[in-house]
Amino acid sequence: MLSLPIAMLAEYLQLLMVFQVILLSTDRWAQKDVNPALFSRELMRNSSSFLKDEEVNGDPQILLMKAHAATSSIGSATVIIAVLEKTGTLKIASVGDCGLKVIRKGQVMFSIPPQEHYFDCPYQISSEAAGQTYQDALVCSVNLMDGDMIVSGSDGLFDNIFDQEIISIISESSGVDEAAKALAELARKHSVDVTFDSPYSMEARSRGFDVPWWKKVLGAKLIGGKMDDITVVVAQVKTVAVPEDEGGDIEEQKGNEQSIAISVSSAEQNEE
Amino acid sequence: MLSLPIAMLAEYLQLLMVFQVILLSTDRWAQKDVNPALFSRELMRNSSSFLKDEEVNGDPQILLMKAHAATSSIGSATVIIAVLEKTGTLKIASVGDCGLKVIRKGQVMFSIPPQEHYFDCPYQISSEAAGQTYQDALVCSVNLMDGDMIVSGSDGLFDNIFDQEIISIISESSGVDEAAKALAELARKHSVDVTFDSPYSMEARSRGFDVPWWKKVLGAKLIGGKMDDITVVVAQVKTVAVPEDEGGDIEEQKGNEQSIAISVSSAEQNEE
Repeated sequence: MLSLPIAMLAEYLQLLMVFQVILLSTDRWAQKDVNPALFSRELMRNSSSFLKDEEVNGDPQILLMKAHAATSSIGSATVIIAVLEKTGTLKIASVGDCGLKVIRKGQVMFSIPPQEHYFDCPYQISSEAAGQTYQDALVCSVNLMDGDMIVSGSDGLFDNIFDQEIISIISESSGVDEAAKALAELARKHSVDVTFDSPYSMEARSRGFDVPWWKKVLGAKLIGGKMDDITVVVAQVKTVAVPEDEGGDIEEQKGNEQSIAISVSSAEQNEE
Repeated sequence: MLSLPIAMLAEYLQLLMVFQVILLSTDRWAQKDVNPALFSRELMRNSSSFLKDEEVNGDPQILLMKAHAATSSIGSATVIIAVLEKTGTLKIASVGDCGLKVIRKGQVMFSIPPQEHYFDCPYQISSEAAGQTYQDALVCSVNLMDGDMIVSGSDGLFDNIFDQEIISIISESSGVDEAAKALAELARKHSVDVTFDSPYSMEARSRGFDVPWWKKVLGAKLIGGKMDDITVVVAQVKTVAVPEDEGGDIEEQKGNEQSIAISVSSAEQNEE
């Protein structure tokens, strides 16, 4: 088992949320005798410290730019930063193949596709000039509603678990803790199941990867889960009452007594 | 062939874009002796006339609310409204199973999933109280870049054509006209191909629909395209220079000489 192969942060700051799911490109950096955890940890610390920065002003792309510029460690990482505004808008900046889905009334109503150079080679924020920057981020936002569930995770989650499974687990779980743990556990189980036709193996086949022709003739096909580190963050959106002095600090919100808050839980499964 | 079964609008207003893809629930309304085109046409006319409304202020959800409230025809429709801001943010409100994808550097980097009550029964804006309203819309936005291609369409497009096919056609086409026509034509071809394993048939099987068991035993499965009306809108994003007096009308943009514009083309294929 690797030492701290995934680092993850879920932090409240008033009613803002930042969560980052950083998957380390472990192999490449380990070969260069670089501890691959250092870059992502520092990037996260910096993201956290810039969250209330005046220039950042709740913009996840500017936050990523500043955090990246302030990071001096060697390494690279895929990253999602999501900032929830009081009005219920979730602002997202994503570089790489982490994912984020919003589940509303039993269906995935918003989803971020992975960004990659080619199959299985994701965009990454890096200490090297060849890597991607905040300018390569997918920047988008979605208006949330009371009851929405946010499921974010590393590719180890979404490569091993189908949307319908995520929806089932979310609907059967009593809360975000239980949901995050159940999602991570099911993804881990699928990841080591060589007979499971996973989202990853289906995607691989659709890109032209498969078993050799002589196995195909015998009816075989490329299947199986994808062994990988798995990080899951589950958040639930709730409408909350806000005292007037807090609700009125943005001019447009004066007199608005409703605001959006979330409860967050996370779970991890490390590749063994 | 139905008379005007799909209505579609692509309109420039300065640097704003509105496009709406409205698919009519033809069968149900035809049975009630209601011309199903009337509702969507009026909804579109109203959307167009409210585009510069002060209260709307570029917000596609408010635009939908006002257009819907002003529509007196009987009927229902699925709808996407997308408004492109000068800064490059595409603001979207969607009710139902129309789709919108953004293609950047040869990959789908943003996509809107369909909203439906159950398989093949989409959310719809309606003249009846039982229908959905602007409050049920998926409201989101995405920051566009120079060169991005936007592909929007009715479910007749996305039920019959895979992302990889869309990407191929976009990359091979000389412009938005050619791309829109090629996408509509390929979707039409697939829609009448009973041997094509379409996105629609794959989705149907994943929801538990399939051929009877005795056909399954013989190796058969539910495949085929989905015969439907097909509307495609393709838009390409370009950075353009803006004269100072135009670029400076929003305070934050003062001194910004770059702005985002689009070229749009559309194509239709009616179910025969």
